[in-house]
Amino acid sequence: MKKIKHLRCSKCGKTFDEDVMYHCDECGPIGTLDVVYDNAFIERTLTKNYLINNNRRDIWRYMPILPLEGERGISPLQVGWTPLYKAERLEKLLGVRNIYIKDDGRNPTASFKDRASAIGVAKAIELNKKIICAASTGNAASSLSGFAACMGIENYIFVPANAPEAKITQLLIYGSNVILVDGDYDTAFDFCTKAVDKFGWYNRSCAINPYLVEGKKTAAFEICEQLNFDVPDKVIMAVGDGCSISAVWKGFEEFYALGLIKKVPKMVSVQAEGANPVNRAFRSGKKCFDYVTPNTIADSISVGIPRNGYKALNCLTQSKGIAIDVSDEEILNAMTCLARFTGVFGEPAGVTAFAGLVKLIKNGEICSNESIALIVSGNGLKDIKSAMKAVIKPDKMKPDLEQLSKYIKSNEK
Amino acid sequence: MKKIKHLRCSKCGKTFDEDVMYHCDECGPIGTLDVVYDNAFIERTLTKNYLINNNRRDIWRYMPILPLEGERGISPLQVGWTPLYKAERLEKLLGVRNIYIKDDGRNPTASFKDRASAIGVAKAIELNKKIICAASTGNAASSLSGFAACMGIENYIFVPANAPEAKITQLLIYGSNVILVDGDYDTAFDFCTKAVDKFGWYNRSCAINPYLVEGKKTAAFEICEQLNFDVPDKVIMAVGDGCSISAVWKGFEEFYALGLIKKVPKMVSVQAEGANPVNRAFRSGKKCFDYVTPNTIADSISVGIPRNGYKALNCLTQSKGIAIDVSDEEILNAMTCLARFTGVFGEPAGVTAFAGLVKLIKNGEICSNESIALIVSGNGLKDIKSAMKAVIKPDKMKPDLEQLSKYIKSNEK
Ligand SMILES: [Zn+2]
Ligand SMILES: [Zn+2]
Repeated sequence: MKKIKHLRCSKCGKTFDEDVMYHCDECGPIGTLDVVYDNAFIERTLTKNYLINNNRRDIWRYMPILPLEGERGISPLQVGWTPLYKAERLEKLLGVRNIYIKDDGRNPTASFKDRASAIGVAKAIELNKKIICAASTGNAASSLSGFAACMGIENYIFVPANAPEAKITQLLIYGSNVILVDGDYDTAFDFCTKAVDKFGWYNRSCAINPYLVEGKKTAAFEICEQLNFDVPDKVIMAVGDGCSISAVWKGFEEFYALGLIKKVPKMVSVQAEGANPVNRAFRSGKKCFDYVTPNTIADSISVGIPRNGYKALNCLTQSKGIAIDVSDEEILNAMTCLARFTGVFGEPAGVTAFAGLVKLIKNGEICSNESIALIVSGNGLKDIKSAMKAVIKPDKMKPDLEQLSKYIKSNEK
Repeated sequence: MKKIKHLRCSKCGKTFDEDVMYHCDECGPIGTLDVVYDNAFIERTLTKNYLINNNRRDIWRYMPILPLEGERGISPLQVGWTPLYKAERLEKLLGVRNIYIKDDGRNPTASFKDRASAIGVAKAIELNKKIICAASTGNAASSLSGFAACMGIENYIFVPANAPEAKITQLLIYGSNVILVDGDYDTAFDFCTKAVDKFGWYNRSCAINPYLVEGKKTAAFEICEQLNFDVPDKVIMAVGDGCSISAVWKGFEEFYALGLIKKVPKMVSVQAEGANPVNRAFRSGKKCFDYVTPNTIADSISVGIPRNGYKALNCLTQSKGIAIDVSDEEILNAMTCLARFTGVFGEPAGVTAFAGLVKLIKNGEICSNESIALIVSGNGLKDIKSAMKAVIKPDKMKPDLEQLSKYIKSNEK
């Protein structure tokens, strides 16, 4: 494709021609590939004027810098261009002047992953692949499932058997072939990889397929545009495999290289205390990941081996970023706080970035005049069981006004 | 307000000046009120040109014909302007040329009701009301709850204790005062009405507050615009209290009166067999509703007494509409069919309109060259328990390629 220069290994930097390759031949699976564009070619079309006059409000407005030949594989499902809210009530509560919340739970299957699946399915159709597959903690799965259903593409999905019920149900409703793997995400991931080798399916796993992050980077483009090209000082994201944060970072870098923005943000990686391999590696300064069995309520980032760890470390180093861990309790508190002050209800991983913001402010690591953007990566409706842990369900009440009066009085205390 | 002429009783036609009145003094609670606008005043601003040049993509683009003085009460939550999909794979499957699916599960709290709550909360703020309340089968509740949270307004919500867990959880996460009424929706509704009388709260119940349907009617405006003012022949909706269908009908009527569209659609009311008071009344030709204990999986339309029944009957009569009942089984089948052919996952009531379409086609009541629009009123994630009834959960699988091969072969049969 003319707009793409080459693919480049995120570990050793070796470059490759574009074809259906999943990782660097020298580094192996950990050497995931980046799509590198020909800027000289792209900047001829992708100008500020082009964007301002573009009426399309979904990820396809960024077609000049997406890895597709044409529109053949594009699903009608409206993906991306999710709202970015200035959270005024939160700003007052937390004493920070500019907090922006990007609600990616508003995507077609209710998560950020839809940006990647839209590209994955389109790419599979462009390459005439008949069957797509993916391993996922849940959201990437339900997302692929929805887009594949819309386009009528057969698919196999590998999820850990203990994934939240809502996410598994989405898969079944969409008619995917669901492989409920007896094991955790890491097991499901490896099983899926083996199946790809054996059956020759198209692998949508974001940590493997270089085109997927290309969908996710559009969130950065949108933040730039929605803030009138005035880039926030920090962008905070929850981190599991490391794909999403490095994708968003790639988006800012690309807009910067094209001269569309004047600076790049510092990236903040928020991980759960019980699943923090990227943050541990970043703090230690080492470029390697040691496995600890993941343990967190935030299923979408419950990862022992970060499959895109190098990309994530690169992004933290290059952006002079921050790594911060939060507890499950802090995640649940973030869930109610965010909902009560903005009306945005996120799933545990979805509000983890916000939990990180609250903690950074407490630790004095955010100044009041900074501008902060964070992405809510999944809708709270995707994991009601976890949400129930953040609240107390009241007792039933008979339709009796006296009892109600008592309740109101007890509220006023 | 200059743009509003008066309020008019939906039963006897008596008119009233605008104030905080909930129903006609002569007809009682069944005499719900309609907001009647001064068309001569409105058509000065609300022209086709005004719409085409309006960059705002939410319900507030229709401000000239919404019952608000100004923008003071408007929540930042982005509501409305949900996608309208041309469902090409469904069209082929069902042999109908033009099927449009409006996915209102994409609203902030994942249901059509957000259109009403956005207005309800804005109106309460405009009227300086401190506490809002509502009775709801679930979606209106979680919707009010989200918008009130965003704006920091205290609220009391009356829901039947057996409402789906996800909807109750939303309320608790948003920090509402939740009254879990020991009884069905009808009991919760009456209890809420009594509480309003006693405590002087602002009543958001759509079947009572004349301003709420004003938010819902925007779905009709959007369908007109999204189809380039080429109105579909039939618009199909699930019906519970009757508010939503009459609201959407009102939207078409208003655009017609303003000369923005050249015809109005026939409205199709789809009810569950176990909760069909509006359809029964329409078929019998009587203007009265007999109570039968409601019994359907579609909780959002599980209504024994249709609180806005007259408005719904008016809309069916005036539009020369159709009433059709569907079984719970047909609803569950519609859920998987819609998801698998469009990628849109709706809750039971959310797909009831689609179940109605399938049945009408089977019955030969839809011609292949008609254009049909239907509204998916709520996201499937809101009621996972019901969705599980539409599918079969597979067994766990060990990460073993041979077992996988067997599974694939069994699929191919
Ligand atoms: Zn390499
Ligand atoms: Zn009357």
